[in-house]
Amino acid sequence: MYYIGVDLGGTNIAAGIVNEEGLIIRKKSIPTGRTRNAEEIVSDICRVILGLMEEECLTTENVHSIGIGSPGIHDRENGVIIYNNNLNFRNVNVRELIRKSIPLPVYLENDANCAAIAESVAGAAKGEDHAVIITIGTGIGGGIIIDKKLYTGFNGGGGELGHIVIQLNGEPCTCGRKGCWEAYASATALIRQTKDAALKNPNSKINEIVGGDLSRIDAKTAFDAAKMGDCTGLEVVNNYIVYLAEGLANIVNIFQPGVIAIGGGVSKEGEYLLRPLREKVRELTYSGYGLEEGKIVAAQMGNDAGIVGAAFITKVW
Amino acid sequence: MYYIGVDLGGTNIAAGIVNEEGLIIRKKSIPTGRTRNAEEIVSDICRVILGLMEEECLTTENVHSIGIGSPGIHDRENGVIIYNNNLNFRNVNVRELIRKSIPLPVYLENDANCAAIAESVAGAAKGEDHAVIITIGTGIGGGIIIDKKLYTGFNGGGGELGHIVIQLNGEPCTCGRKGCWEAYASATALIRQTKDAALKNPNSKINEIVGGDLSRIDAKTAFDAAKMGDCTGLEVVNNYIVYLAEGLANIVNIFQPGVIAIGGGVSKEGEYLLRPLREKVRELTYSGYGLEEGKIVAAQMGNDAGIVGAAFITKVW
Repeated sequence: MYYIGVDLGGTNIAAGIVNEEGLIIRKKSIPTGRTRNAEEIVSDICRVILGLMEEECLTTENVHSIGIGSPGIHDRENGVIIYNNNLNFRNVNVRELIRKSIPLPVYLENDANCAAIAESVAGAAKGEDHAVIITIGTGIGGGIIIDKKLYTGFNGGGGELGHIVIQLNGEPCTCGRKGCWEAYASATALIRQTKDAALKNPNSKINEIVGGDLSRIDAKTAFDAAKMGDCTGLEVVNNYIVYLAEGLANIVNIFQPGVIAIGGGVSKEGEYLLRPLREKVRELTYSGYGLEEGKIVAAQMGNDAGIVGAAFITKVW
Repeated sequence: MYYIGVDLGGTNIAAGIVNEEGLIIRKKSIPTGRTRNAEEIVSDICRVILGLMEEECLTTENVHSIGIGSPGIHDRENGVIIYNNNLNFRNVNVRELIRKSIPLPVYLENDANCAAIAESVAGAAKGEDHAVIITIGTGIGGGIIIDKKLYTGFNGGGGELGHIVIQLNGEPCTCGRKGCWEAYASATALIRQTKDAALKNPNSKINEIVGGDLSRIDAKTAFDAAKMGDCTGLEVVNNYIVYLAEGLANIVNIFQPGVIAIGGGVSKEGEYLLRPLREKVRELTYSGYGLEEGKIVAAQMGNDAGIVGAAFITKVW
């Protein structure tokens, strides 16, 4: 049996056919054309799916279901995207629209949750009963796996781990609160911290790396400067690791997950980030009574997480 | 079938026989005598249990099991209290000791988790799939119910909801971190905040209520002063509600539980506390997309929570 996963983003629609092992056997990506209306976009999704199926000689009898991951608020029961800020979707019944041309079950899930599903079924958290997947990007996305199932609360809105306040009356957050973890430990926050440091220390390597154009600073810049031995870069990275660790220590105290997997661009720093991060989290959570420690690892599914997670939605419901 | 629950505290041992409906049909409490050795204390527990069974004409055939709730770290699998600070228990195999005189299955659980079990099976969270129970006392205890089961993580140490940092580098916490929710919203924290306010405002009603002896301030004092229209008392209460609300908003964003039940002494303030608390939490979590809201209510099981929760440990494992 095969599974179809669609990663419906603001920039691209990526769709793939996934086998039982979580491997993408064929995939295709097209621009979303996000200003178009929902019918046109969903019609494109159907075209891509039918094309992939034809290329693999699959009929609807060989395919279990179609899963779609996208940011925003969904009515899972009815297959409706209630709200998607990137696409201007409002109450779009994606299931109905797709089933007009493809008679398969259609499921929707939040994109951060899809990343968690992918890591749980085929990636860094494979085989773990309890895991938390953190995706560090524009914001901080969270996905909670409990007893190998996706946990989303009584109303489907749970797992907003980026919106745990770690600093009362702190930095403003997009959610309306002040001091959320996301406002300190997202890639956006790291870029802001890097810019602030570069402004205060005009002779730092940070400024050199971006040729004096601070608008070119990204989430990698401070790490690059730190690796070159730059004190300013090092300070930014060290502070950032503390922010990240405080939030992860919260998650350990709440969930004691067997695995915390960290995805998103920042996680590409690998052990350079993870080694000091683990140390700091251990320091903040050390119980002293021989409680076994969960693992903190990099997510493994990379850009494929969206497709694989969407394809496997039904495996974790 | 009947269940025996034991609430093993630093001051008292309270034991009770509980029926299938979660009602205590007979109970007894004796002083713990906490400086004594483990064998003597467990022998007392057995004596109380056997006495209660005799008074109800029960044999081991009518009793399902014995559950024991106590603070500290437990090895649930082997029935061992690894560490209990109140009792100076270190690696005491309570199951073995009890089974020497009573041939029944014996289970152990953390006391905050027992409170959660009681509320889930017979109290404020009865019938809810997903609930969080917060017990406000010396610290803040948390108990997480997911799919009607107690969630404790891969190593049994999860649910430490008092130890979510809400203020980086904030007030020192007993756990070794700085800025934990417990350091702002426990009864201990409220007493500290009340004392500080009374020191700064010697003419407040707070000082009057305790006859000028600030050591007599308890978790009720600020509420009593506020209800008398005292500005200082009102300010303490309002700030305390914000601290409590910020932590609860975190819990909503993480879990979206159908019910959050609040127990412990402070919860006796009832709607005087809960009404503004709900408003503040709604303000901090309002999503604007019609997401159904969970309830925030007072815990219902009061002093019986420890016995009922311990008795029903096996119902939520």
